[in-house]
Amino acid sequence: MTYCVALKLNAGLVLLSDTRTNAGLDNISTYRKMFFFEEPGERVIAMMTAGSLSVTQTTISRLQEAIESPESTERTSIMKAQTMLGVVDIIGDTLAKTRREIAMQCSDLKQSQSSASIIVAGQREGGDMRLFLIYPEGNHIEATEDTPYLQIGEHKYGKPILDRVVTPATSLEDAQKAALLSMDSTMKSNLSVGMPLDLAVIEEGACRVSAKRRILKGDPQFSAMSVAWSEALREAFVEMPL
Amino acid sequence: MTYCVALKLNAGLVLLSDTRTNAGLDNISTYRKMFFFEEPGERVIAMMTAGSLSVTQTTISRLQEAIESPESTERTSIMKAQTMLGVVDIIGDTLAKTRREIAMQCSDLKQSQSSASIIVAGQREGGDMRLFLIYPEGNHIEATEDTPYLQIGEHKYGKPILDRVVTPATSLEDAQKAALLSMDSTMKSNLSVGMPLDLAVIEEGACRVSAKRRILKGDPQFSAMSVAWSEALREAFVEMPL
Repeated sequence: MTYCVALKLNAGLVLLSDTRTNAGLDNISTYRKMFFFEEPGERVIAMMTAGSLSVTQTTISRLQEAIESPESTERTSIMKAQTMLGVVDIIGDTLAKTRREIAMQCSDLKQSQSSASIIVAGQREGGDMRLFLIYPEGNHIEATEDTPYLQIGEHKYGKPILDRVVTPATSLEDAQKAALLSMDSTMKSNLSVGMPLDLAVIEEGACRVSAKRRILKGDPQFSAMSVAWSEALREAFVEMPL
Repeated sequence: MTYCVALKLNAGLVLLSDTRTNAGLDNISTYRKMFFFEEPGERVIAMMTAGSLSVTQTTISRLQEAIESPESTERTSIMKAQTMLGVVDIIGDTLAKTRREIAMQCSDLKQSQSSASIIVAGQREGGDMRLFLIYPEGNHIEATEDTPYLQIGEHKYGKPILDRVVTPATSLEDAQKAALLSMDSTMKSNLSVGMPLDLAVIEEGACRVSAKRRILKGDPQFSAMSVAWSEALREAFVEMPL
């Protein structure tokens, strides 16, 4: 399983992903699920993936190959596309094509086993920050003012905290806190979501990754936060009238 | 959808269920999902149901019919069974048989559409309080000291709060609070879980329903609690260090 969450605030984008992949409970590995394509100052594209590792890795590799190809155009390379909508269309097409191919090769795979989805966040110079969720079929939805965050993977445990505290006016610092607490709740309830975590911040207008952090197991700052949150919840609970 | 949760504390049992059923988003009704079979002082059995309404209603009706039958025995009537394990076996068998019959009648139903599960809680005079979850196939699991609660239906949104505050030593009052906050989180995230709510308390050793309460939409006490919890979470969030 996987949990990835991205928030689009007035001040910028915040992305957080776990790194655990599993094929059954006895086959657990660590794989990065957050990827950056960047020409600092001109464009920044961040992606987070969930679902079949075979599908998502192949999709990322093909996007990379298309960028490096001498024949790349604005219709094939996400580094040349004129808009973020163009970027998301290329990624969606590549994902859907990869999925179909892998599903055909492995005709005994259940449909869900070759499923995958991708969160895409980014900005081009002169354009707006945008945040998309691409479905396995290649179509997408976009985050709006009303719902300024998108999730993929095991999204339910970590949703209540986001609904309660996140609005577009939330600061980048508070948004990182909210994302980390959302991840903390998810990891407490689903063992197949696990450390280390990848956290990234993209400030509005910067068109580059402003901050990147890998949070390892036992990270003192994250552990302290997790404990403090549990304490705060328990205290609030005790003081709550029935 | 449905959300039902039951907690087994040293002091007794606490049960909470919603009442919303839906067949599609445009066909929503209110049905009770909490049922009692009681001979006060001798035995109390509480049940909560999730899944196909056709399956759960038929199951409850058949259990009732078996109780009223002049030929009822300790193998067919949950009011005559010698132990809570006997009770749960009768309910499991009735559920599994009902499901199979309905699935056969409607061969174009998907398997999941005739699925249903039941939480059973209760005590017989001289026996222990017990809390079970019966799966659609009729088998069951039981709540233990390690995990003193069981959930059916839309269980994910409301799980983090239970994990943080509930232990067997939790008081009946705090357990009601925890169940109601767990329900509140669930209703905020899943519209197909909805008011009114049914709340019941069975004190240890009483072998009767000690308290029963229907909480209607707009209930001032529940609304105040929901608002106070949101406030407390937001305050805790603001004061949390990153």
